[in-house]
Amino acid sequence: MPQEFSGVTVVVPANVYFDGKVTSRTIKFADGTTKTLGLMQPGEYEFGTDKPELMEITAGKLGVQLAGEMEWKEYNGGESFNVPGNSKFQVRASEVTDYVCSYLEG
Amino acid sequence: MPQEFSGVTVVVPANVYFDGKVTSRTIKFADGTTKTLGLMQPGEYEFGTDKPELMEITAGKLGVQLAGEMEWKEYNGGESFNVPGNSKFQVRASEVTDYVCSYLEG
Repeated sequence: MPQEFSGVTVVVPANVYFDGKVTSRTIKFADGTTKTLGLMQPGEYEFGTDKPELMEITAGKLGVQLAGEMEWKEYNGGESFNVPGNSKFQVRASEVTDYVCSYLEG
Repeated sequence: MPQEFSGVTVVVPANVYFDGKVTSRTIKFADGTTKTLGLMQPGEYEFGTDKPELMEITAGKLGVQLAGEMEWKEYNGGESFNVPGNSKFQVRASEVTDYVCSYLEG
């Protein structure tokens, strides 16, 4: 994970979910791809995907249960996981969690 | 306030204050200036400035008391206020508040 993204466009209004407990900023790259840089307050949330996603944890601690899986897996800063497209996943942030979500081609 | 900032560099790790109740992302411009795009959870916070700051509220509701002032003033989305350099200010976010902070030359 790079420390910076250069030559990008940042959308000013934040994306706000779960009464602001989860927020993100959309970053557009010159190649047409998009990432969001997000923050989760401690809590449990369910997300849905459209495209497949790569979730990279910058800092924090996140338990994750993908759709159809019984197991919860825990991810810390520097770790990442993939989520299939058109899917749902549950997360439990036990700390404030800083992440980068990359939207992949399906 | 533009809806996007283009041709910028985004620092990936978030700035985290007050146990994550206030977070921001640093954006660097080609002209060497810097802004942060931030979010405050509802609550009351005190900030200090080094350089003078322009605080533009993208969304939310923020009461503000500058150092040496008795009065609280309220700012909503689309409104802004200036803070002197080397100063302190108190804020009360009554809603999740999305803001852009510009660091000005002193």
